[in-house]
Amino acid sequence: MSTTFAPLQNDTFLRACLRQATDHTPIWLMRQAGRYLPEYRATRAQAGSFMGLATDVDYATEVTLQPLERYALDAAILFSDILTVPDAMGLGLSFAQGEGPKFEKTVRTEADVAMLAVPDMNKLRYVFDAVTSIRKALNGRVPLIGFSGSPWTLACYMVEGGGSDDYRMVKTLMYQRPDLMHRVLAINADAVALYLRTQIEAGAQAVMVFDSWGGVLADGNFQSFSLAYTKRVLDQLPKAYNGQRIPRIVFTKGGGLWLDDMNTLDCDVLGLDWTVNLARARAAVGGEVGGPGKALQGNLDPNVLFAAPEQVAAEAVKVLERFGKPHTDRHSTGPTHIFNLGHGISQFTPPENVQVLVETVHAHSRQMRRHAHTP
Amino acid sequence: MSTTFAPLQNDTFLRACLRQATDHTPIWLMRQAGRYLPEYRATRAQAGSFMGLATDVDYATEVTLQPLERYALDAAILFSDILTVPDAMGLGLSFAQGEGPKFEKTVRTEADVAMLAVPDMNKLRYVFDAVTSIRKALNGRVPLIGFSGSPWTLACYMVEGGGSDDYRMVKTLMYQRPDLMHRVLAINADAVALYLRTQIEAGAQAVMVFDSWGGVLADGNFQSFSLAYTKRVLDQLPKAYNGQRIPRIVFTKGGGLWLDDMNTLDCDVLGLDWTVNLARARAAVGGEVGGPGKALQGNLDPNVLFAAPEQVAAEAVKVLERFGKPHTDRHSTGPTHIFNLGHGISQFTPPENVQVLVETVHAHSRQMRRHAHTP
Repeated sequence: MSTTFAPLQNDTFLRACLRQATDHTPIWLMRQAGRYLPEYRATRAQAGSFMGLATDVDYATEVTLQPLERYALDAAILFSDILTVPDAMGLGLSFAQGEGPKFEKTVRTEADVAMLAVPDMNKLRYVFDAVTSIRKALNGRVPLIGFSGSPWTLACYMVEGGGSDDYRMVKTLMYQRPDLMHRVLAINADAVALYLRTQIEAGAQAVMVFDSWGGVLADGNFQSFSLAYTKRVLDQLPKAYNGQRIPRIVFTKGGGLWLDDMNTLDCDVLGLDWTVNLARARAAVGGEVGGPGKALQGNLDPNVLFAAPEQVAAEAVKVLERFGKPHTDRHSTGPTHIFNLGHGISQFTPPENVQVLVETVHAHSRQMRRHAHTP
Repeated sequence: MSTTFAPLQNDTFLRACLRQATDHTPIWLMRQAGRYLPEYRATRAQAGSFMGLATDVDYATEVTLQPLERYALDAAILFSDILTVPDAMGLGLSFAQGEGPKFEKTVRTEADVAMLAVPDMNKLRYVFDAVTSIRKALNGRVPLIGFSGSPWTLACYMVEGGGSDDYRMVKTLMYQRPDLMHRVLAINADAVALYLRTQIEAGAQAVMVFDSWGGVLADGNFQSFSLAYTKRVLDQLPKAYNGQRIPRIVFTKGGGLWLDDMNTLDCDVLGLDWTVNLARARAAVGGEVGGPGKALQGNLDPNVLFAAPEQVAAEAVKVLERFGKPHTDRHSTGPTHIFNLGHGISQFTPPENVQVLVETVHAHSRQMRRHAHTP
């Protein structure tokens, strides 16, 4: 592919991913293009269904840009679903009205596993076309993040056939037939790697792996059934494309206990949920000026956005102060923070509170940089 | 109360709680009297409903003892529900067939909170009568554990009106009206303390606080909205009754990141789920021989019990070895382990696998004590 895109006007997010100094702490929100926005609900009603929205390039472009029209967010994220890859493997994804995702077929037996293979990327053409279309529509305003579910998280849905509250099926397979589980995960990892590589070629300027269900694993199993396959994905990704570094973000919901393990990943950013103490995480993996380390992304509880505007602002400030002042050395790398929620934004969020959040993060983080020390 | 009970024949569990040396690692299972046992399902069918079972002294006694007839468990736990306390506050608990608990009334407004008070313990007489009846029926075989939900966990159900997957209502109240939330939690703490004290007077030989939803809180909020009120409960409990020490166990599901905070609690045992590395937990809070510390309880993933018997045994051994050899000094206290699951046993568990688990824990933990060093 050789599409030429407009030059980037706001590189704050990419710089922070690469632990470079920035004038403010960049902010974007997981699921920022979503049901809490009336304009999103209107477009989705037109499209008829979630997959109708995700598989249509124009709709996907439109909804991706909607939050950027309202808020001064520092990044856009591809509008899609983490389950597109198993869908392309032939499992038959659908979203019933008001319910979570469902697969027509599940992967539970040796025969089921034998049928699995890295899917033909042409079946995911709609995703790559959306990436290119969004990148063009952004016209250099902010960078575009591509993403995928982690091999383990995809496997959870593939084995369970949908959401779960006890992960009984996937863990039964894991404990009974670890050999089969490893086979599924290896295929998933190679599929995810190819999927993300193709997103990068289509125009994604950073990529994120969502390990939404890594946190349900036992200590020891997280390392061998989730982390090892996230590593296998990262090993297959280009570090740069067309001369531009492509930062990699890994987010394990509920993974706070395994920060030291995650620190061994060859990625630039670690995403954190609200259970993690940002000051401690910074001390553990954020590194020093001039030394190695990970940028940290997170970690406001999305439920904060149900409070009054002044409370939203106060909680946002707490998160910024918990991380502390990011480094400001323009000649070196060092500890940086990307503001985000610790999970996707709720559909019940009042949109005006997102405005307060974004403005507070920008204003307060600028102010923090002007002071020699923060509390 | 001055009931005289039979002398205790197996004090392994109580000794381990108090960090005293034992010949084997004691084991009991959260929700060990439950739906995975056909005899439980038969009794429940007779009783007609879950609350029919829990409020009838004879039924509650019968089902509490059922797992002990099958397995060489080292403790019994009162058959009851964590929501009896808010039910006694007048919120109207019910369990619809095949669904989770539901409250008729919720606690969301200033007026709702104003109505709350520590309930008259006579409304919970059925619980205390069950404790005494079970203690008599046990006839000294193993100790009886009493329990309650934590103030925060009770508040989750009281505000949400039932289970939740996002805790939106309770967190909205917490972030919007922390003053109201603290009022609810203070009342809950005093109610839980009185409830546990009365269980102790009725015959409970150890007490456990289930903070099932502490792990959904943000760092900082866990400490002020959950841990502080668990502390308020513990402060009101007698350390001994009738000359016997009454060990206190605190279990926060998903609380592994806050072990150091939990270590400050005035309790004897910390319960851990499967995400926690037992060796690291022991190093952090288990203490040394002769020094202070907490006994540790846990932490097998309940889903292991869906694997083949030899796999169940292998995973049980892994948990024992991860903790390592408990101390064996009969003249001192030191690090001890109480084997348990990291969450309640699943209703789908094959009962024969529980047999394998209990036998493996007993046999292997005896063997570990015979060796000078464990791997």
